[in-house]
Amino acid sequence: MSNINLFIVGSVGIDDITTREQTQTNLLGGSVSYGCAAASFFTKVGAVGVVGSDFPPEFLKCYSRFGIDTAGIQTKPGQTFRWAGAYNENMIDRTTLNTELGVFAEFEPELPPAYRSVKYILLGNIQPTLQLHVLDQVESPDFVAMDTMNLWINIARDELLKVISRVDMISLNDEEARLLTGCYQMRDCAEAILNMGPRYVAIKKGEHGSLLFSRGGIFIVPAYPVYTLVDPTGAGDMYAGAFMGRLASRGRTDEAALRDALVYGSVISSFGVEAFSTDRLMTLTQADITARYAELITMITP
Amino acid sequence: MSNINLFIVGSVGIDDITTREQTQTNLLGGSVSYGCAAASFFTKVGAVGVVGSDFPPEFLKCYSRFGIDTAGIQTKPGQTFRWAGAYNENMIDRTTLNTELGVFAEFEPELPPAYRSVKYILLGNIQPTLQLHVLDQVESPDFVAMDTMNLWINIARDELLKVISRVDMISLNDEEARLLTGCYQMRDCAEAILNMGPRYVAIKKGEHGSLLFSRGGIFIVPAYPVYTLVDPTGAGDMYAGAFMGRLASRGRTDEAALRDALVYGSVISSFGVEAFSTDRLMTLTQADITARYAELITMITP
Repeated sequence: MSNINLFIVGSVGIDDITTREQTQTNLLGGSVSYGCAAASFFTKVGAVGVVGSDFPPEFLKCYSRFGIDTAGIQTKPGQTFRWAGAYNENMIDRTTLNTELGVFAEFEPELPPAYRSVKYILLGNIQPTLQLHVLDQVESPDFVAMDTMNLWINIARDELLKVISRVDMISLNDEEARLLTGCYQMRDCAEAILNMGPRYVAIKKGEHGSLLFSRGGIFIVPAYPVYTLVDPTGAGDMYAGAFMGRLASRGRTDEAALRDALVYGSVISSFGVEAFSTDRLMTLTQADITARYAELITMITP
Repeated sequence: MSNINLFIVGSVGIDDITTREQTQTNLLGGSVSYGCAAASFFTKVGAVGVVGSDFPPEFLKCYSRFGIDTAGIQTKPGQTFRWAGAYNENMIDRTTLNTELGVFAEFEPELPPAYRSVKYILLGNIQPTLQLHVLDQVESPDFVAMDTMNLWINIARDELLKVISRVDMISLNDEEARLLTGCYQMRDCAEAILNMGPRYVAIKKGEHGSLLFSRGGIFIVPAYPVYTLVDPTGAGDMYAGAFMGRLASRGRTDEAALRDALVYGSVISSFGVEAFSTDRLMTLTQADITARYAELITMITP
């Protein structure tokens, strides 16, 4: 099992997506697919998730074309996690039309032995007990980032607080940050979350970018303003995946490294939304990334 | 009739404002009050507007404490423009509870003779024909910025397009930009508006900051993340006023000067929302501004 520098745990799914302009069915989706594809431009990444016996072989080929290690992908009898959603006219808000957990309902992330010494870990949005189970299997990671959602804040708060106390960074949106802390202004929310243990709190604002809070200060990174928005699904996962991939590739976890990595997160996710699924990333080149990174830097330099 | 470098045309009003926490009545408001107060930290600014015979003398004292020239403020028999509004729980969306135009309904901006040679002009959100009337009175301004709103796009489109073709910069929010152009993505909207004549288009995103579009590129400036949000009323006007004040003080209209001025816009409006009306600006010092400017720069530097 090749020497990966980062692994991502979360969902692998098959999506049906309706946008303002069209509907596409049976797309490769899930936070692991999006995150690993994005990370693959920076480092050797491994996927940890579960798929059903119906998982199309071409999706695994897609993983391998990105050079993603799939030793941590379990195949179980049953159906792969399926999600169907439709975007509103604004292409931001969306309605879930259907969710079938399938084998994802019984997901128990088991790490391949080679993964236990990996230094960079992204815990996607799964049950906090499963996130803890992953952390219990690793030796001494340098940087663990986690995602979560309203559901776990509401129904599994104690376990969630345990995970939060053991990670280096947590990312949430503003609503989740308020629900978790009872504070209102993001600075107050971030301060309360830093007191729960992590060194960094990232507040995700979708098309408005994100804010990185630490004891040392705040970094504000905008989203790259796209010409073409075909499908925003997975934008946050690509953002996080690219961020972690870039961090892992540099082997640094200081604040300057995080700021740099966030800009790359913004760059990669801006490409990702130009097509459905991971299609745009499939044709993305290092030259594309370099050019857009340079463009984004000129957009944020006073 | 001091030598002003900038004047601002728009509304002068008396506001009743309900926030999540309290209601305050009979506050000095209006785009001219907010804009001029903000601009006054950078340059000598003149106010052009109309008030009724009921306008409280202490509000005029407030203007003079900011050093605002009031030669362009007409006093007419009748009632000053009044606005009452209530903010939602999120302190962003708001409901207008009452609007009484009073003497503002018959407003005809007449410039004092000394204003005709002023080089920097901010046309607040008033009827396009009145904006044109102002432009017809000035000699050869260096930089004219304008604000507008949905109403004029809908009911006075032709006149509005005439104003747009004669200004250097227009600021709108995303909804207005879409309504004006029929485009959707902000880059497409901005391109369409640049084709109408202005050199710059600013897209206002409230608590998410703003985007400055020109033929040369895009500048993205975030809002400063506040600890204390007491009243967001006038934030956009303070932003624009500080921006124009800073530009006028430097006497430059190149893109680098605009970027710098936008950061100051963000700084001043972040102070302004810390209290009702222009109260926070009343106690603001140059040292406060310098410190927050430096802080904001560290927040946007990768």
